[in-house]
Amino acid sequence: MQSKMSINGVDVVRLNETVDSIMNDPGLARCRFQATNRWVNGGHNRSSIHGFYAAGQTISHSKDFTHEIDEPPLLLGEDLGANPVEYLLSALSGCLTSSLIYHAAAQGVTIDEVESTLEGDLDLRGFLGLTDQVRNGYDNIRVNFRIRSGAPQEKLDELVQLAQARSPVFDIVTNPVRVEVKAQKIKESMH
Amino acid sequence: MQSKMSINGVDVVRLNETVDSIMNDPGLARCRFQATNRWVNGGHNRSSIHGFYAAGQTISHSKDFTHEIDEPPLLLGEDLGANPVEYLLSALSGCLTSSLIYHAAAQGVTIDEVESTLEGDLDLRGFLGLTDQVRNGYDNIRVNFRIRSGAPQEKLDELVQLAQARSPVFDIVTNPVRVEVKAQKIKESMH
Repeated sequence: MQSKMSINGVDVVRLNETVDSIMNDPGLARCRFQATNRWVNGGHNRSSIHGFYAAGQTISHSKDFTHEIDEPPLLLGEDLGANPVEYLLSALSGCLTSSLIYHAAAQGVTIDEVESTLEGDLDLRGFLGLTDQVRNGYDNIRVNFRIRSGAPQEKLDELVQLAQARSPVFDIVTNPVRVEVKAQKIKESMH
Repeated sequence: MQSKMSINGVDVVRLNETVDSIMNDPGLARCRFQATNRWVNGGHNRSSIHGFYAAGQTISHSKDFTHEIDEPPLLLGEDLGANPVEYLLSALSGCLTSSLIYHAAAQGVTIDEVESTLEGDLDLRGFLGLTDQVRNGYDNIRVNFRIRSGAPQEKLDELVQLAQARSPVFDIVTNPVRVEVKAQKIKESMH
């Protein structure tokens, strides 16, 4: 008999099974995520997400996910998609939200609604190389969550803390990640 | 008479005008980017990008950009969109690519094609809180560019270095950003 108990849309039986499998075989926790980006024109480029590696196997998504990336006209683009620093806010918002939801489910806490607004301050002089006195990226990011739940405020505060403590993208944004970049010159057309 | 000279699809006359405007009035460089995320169910949530603040004004995008965020079945989702750490790779790939293209245009270097593949290694034990010996986010990210251009390899290498040195998302990923998270409990349904 298959048991299924879903809290916040998260199958907590499978969540516990996943934790058990990984505790028995830590190598199963190793994931490799991937993206391929192709430049289109100017500030317009396109990232494609096909699959990933996890639990010892290569897995394809149900379909390829395509992300159109562009800049607005003020930043010399054609506004055909969100720009890279806006995609970064999407990544951070999604990761904090899912971390909150999954860890609430693991604790048996039902959440009814979650909304968040994110704002990031950025000084273009960094990108343009006009001064060393500002950084290139966000100077700071503010996240405001609104949560509807029968749980008391202090439990929600604890879960929001836990979401930050566990979220992969929160870690990537608030701590340094090593990024290795290589480049190869190609002679023939690639497509 | 309007002058226009486009290199790599970037209007370099307007790029130079933008640099001049900002050098005359550095406050014009201040931007604020924004996203609003609404949780849907389980690992599925949706980020919406409406507009931003830049050059002293609030600006709406030509349309709202919606990013569906989910987890694949293995990670207990329904695979209705890329997951947050995949969105992060899209953000990084887009930002490095645009930085390369814009700075090449500023130097008068024509680029014919750019493709990049990104891979990030992540150990799920961080997210699950099973060990302190791994981090939650990517342990490292590898970026491989393939570039077709008449420019010599050493010029392309220099531009790839410059893209890293100037890219906002590269800065955000490789250096710490301060993120302030607040949460408020709401009693009524939000919609």
